[in-house]
Amino acid sequence: MAIIEALQTAPTGTSKPLEDVLEALNFNEAGLIPAVAQQYDSKDVLMLAWMNRESLEETLNTGRVCYFSRSRQKLWRKGEESGHLQHLVEMRIDCDGDTLLLLVDQTGPACHTNHPNCFYLLVEGRKVTVTAASPD
Amino acid sequence: MAIIEALQTAPTGTSKPLEDVLEALNFNEAGLIPAVAQQYDSKDVLMLAWMNRESLEETLNTGRVCYFSRSRQKLWRKGEESGHLQHLVEMRIDCDGDTLLLLVDQTGPACHTNHPNCFYLLVEGRKVTVTAASPD
Repeated sequence: MAIIEALQTAPTGTSKPLEDVLEALNFNEAGLIPAVAQQYDSKDVLMLAWMNRESLEETLNTGRVCYFSRSRQKLWRKGEESGHLQHLVEMRIDCDGDTLLLLVDQTGPACHTNHPNCFYLLVEGRKVTVTAASPD
Repeated sequence: MAIIEALQTAPTGTSKPLEDVLEALNFNEAGLIPAVAQQYDSKDVLMLAWMNRESLEETLNTGRVCYFSRSRQKLWRKGEESGHLQHLVEMRIDCDGDTLLLLVDQTGPACHTNHPNCFYLLVEGRKVTVTAASPD
């Protein structure tokens, strides 16, 4: 954390080696960190998933987003079954080193339900409403 | 979860009572769910924080965003010390009922470091760079 705390008050343009920052990231007790995926041009928030250190490094090395599936307990190369890949445009890390923001270019729908993104349930007063149709 | 699974394939416009959906939300073992805050007009992702059932209900009831602070283990009415409030414009729930998206109107900087949002650390090749200046 020390390096990430130091960056909280550092001037714009200050840089640190990636390796040192990755070492200081705040993975949880399961070794995971939440990653928010946002479509880089529309700025729509697509989904939230989790990464471990290995999936994070693979994502940076390949430019194709790889998460860690908590249900399957293994690397999850987004789109490996659906073809709905995410290409990484930019990765950002938050102030406390405990969340990632992925600016991505999403191929096809981001959500496994075939909605364009996962946030199709809208809270309206005392109801929750489905807001986007699934494709055929 | 059954109600949330049913909504995954429901047509656009389908509604369920809020209370039933809240009961089915997938809070983690600590009783928390991650909430992504996004500025409603610029669509900038501001931060990720956590809510428990009580903070979620308070947020919906008051229209002012309240999180649960994991470090302080208590309700955290965003801006209660800094004055940097978040007004809730819209709340969305994801496909699996395990993440919230809050469209908010942020007063002042969202980040406790006084950056406009928490994602000011940019990964560039093998470096991490501070991208936004703190105000004076």
